[in-house]
Amino acid sequence: MAELVRVVDPADERLADYVRLRDVSLRRHLESEQGLFIAEGEKVIRRSLEAGYRPRSLLLSERWLAGLADLLDAHPDVPVYVVDEALAEQVTGFHVHRGALASLHREVRHTVAELLALDRLVVCEDVVDHTNVGAILRSAAGLGFDGCLLAPRAADPLYRRSVKVSMGAVFSLPWARLEDWEDAVGLLRRAGFLTVALALSEDAVDLPRLAADLEARAAAGTPARVALLLGTEGAGLSPHWVEQAEVVARIPMSRGIDSLNVAAAAAVACYALGPAGRPRHTQQHP
Amino acid sequence: MAELVRVVDPADERLADYVRLRDVSLRRHLESEQGLFIAEGEKVIRRSLEAGYRPRSLLLSERWLAGLADLLDAHPDVPVYVVDEALAEQVTGFHVHRGALASLHREVRHTVAELLALDRLVVCEDVVDHTNVGAILRSAAGLGFDGCLLAPRAADPLYRRSVKVSMGAVFSLPWARLEDWEDAVGLLRRAGFLTVALALSEDAVDLPRLAADLEARAAAGTPARVALLLGTEGAGLSPHWVEQAEVVARIPMSRGIDSLNVAAAAAVACYALGPAGRPRHTQQHP
Repeated sequence: MAELVRVVDPADERLADYVRLRDVSLRRHLESEQGLFIAEGEKVIRRSLEAGYRPRSLLLSERWLAGLADLLDAHPDVPVYVVDEALAEQVTGFHVHRGALASLHREVRHTVAELLALDRLVVCEDVVDHTNVGAILRSAAGLGFDGCLLAPRAADPLYRRSVKVSMGAVFSLPWARLEDWEDAVGLLRRAGFLTVALALSEDAVDLPRLAADLEARAAAGTPARVALLLGTEGAGLSPHWVEQAEVVARIPMSRGIDSLNVAAAAAVACYALGPAGRPRHTQQHP
Repeated sequence: MAELVRVVDPADERLADYVRLRDVSLRRHLESEQGLFIAEGEKVIRRSLEAGYRPRSLLLSERWLAGLADLLDAHPDVPVYVVDEALAEQVTGFHVHRGALASLHREVRHTVAELLALDRLVVCEDVVDHTNVGAILRSAAGLGFDGCLLAPRAADPLYRRSVKVSMGAVFSLPWARLEDWEDAVGLLRRAGFLTVALALSEDAVDLPRLAADLEARAAAGTPARVALLLGTEGAGLSPHWVEQAEVVARIPMSRGIDSLNVAAAAAVACYALGPAGRPRHTQQHP
């Protein structure tokens, strides 16, 4: 069993990893300086540990001890801070209704080169909202994409909100940070990807048309390796990335709605261009 | 020009519509009692007024006056409370970074009977998260569904967060509240809908298979009117609704991911079963 430490002082230094979880700029600074990230909720904590991330500590209210007992047993050297919910709220700055937090060591798990060897990538340009990055990783993984590349300004997949919204997909789907925004699409093209910019340009090909073309290409024995480019909330992809991409695809829109949320658009495009969207008899990766 | 009222006291009664916007239980009570809802951000406020909702008042910081001048001119009898951003934050309880809020009169715009006369419906069982309801309405509208029905316990489409995330789709897509959870699927069936439960049952049909079947049916001149049933976050649809539905469909999942977020799943299913997902030459509603 891990060491249980009951903490009653919200200023206790041992809780420093968990302070003011809603203060994005403070957390960015603290987490990169300390090399940590936060997992929230039993299921997500479980998945972080199963994926081999090393815990620094856990912060739990009493009632979560039983449910997590197996994990605590498996990590006997990790301090477990047991607090009441009022104190957890004082420290973290919000009502931790799932009552369980873990602080874990950050790791760089994959290189850009490793990602470039895969077959189907989602590439986030400046998707800056953590909720969207988490949702995109979850959908990409669930819909059979192989990995995710992130432009330098895209949001951090290991930020608490991203981790939580991804339901732990950030631990299982390979991802890496691009160093160079300028040459990103060029890099993907030289690595042999068909670069597909998702954008609402007038001259874009409709997504179902592109999906049918790619299916025909696969059926002819020359499947394309696809890099799906997704742009920032609001403005979408930069003109630079759109110009550099070989294909610009659009999701046909109805009822005067000008666009989908980027996470919804990502899910639709991963479905249309990945294995999930094909009836089973023609599926490439069953 | 509308009447500009500079307010400097956060306790001013005229700002009562805007208090503590993050306090969900307070807001629920206040909004239903007063028959109001809040629109946030220039674009969404604009869409609410274009859709004919009647404003009670606006709350703006100085710098938004110019951008909204045409709207203020068009509603000369509506009070416009001009405040500095610190006061706006004191009243509403959060940093209103888009700097513009409107309070509008609620209206029941559509009946369940009207919705039952349409061709493609999304039906939310107990989707309780406002962000998800807003995202689902936006995707359903953008991807060519005709309306949305909500079970009695589903989140309110006119709640501030829903409105904002929908980017105003709540104003253009018809929706209505079901009175009876128990008989909802029966009601849809009697109205002639093919009821499709989106669920991850083992014996479910894969979504692309169902889409192909429906396309064949449409090509044969007997298109189905589809009601897509979506369940609550986490647990999904109730066994009662799943049992009552004629078809259970699943989105094929990869990489050990157990499910998509309900808003992502809704977008994928609306794409697959609606007009957006068909190459143009076979599209039913171009």
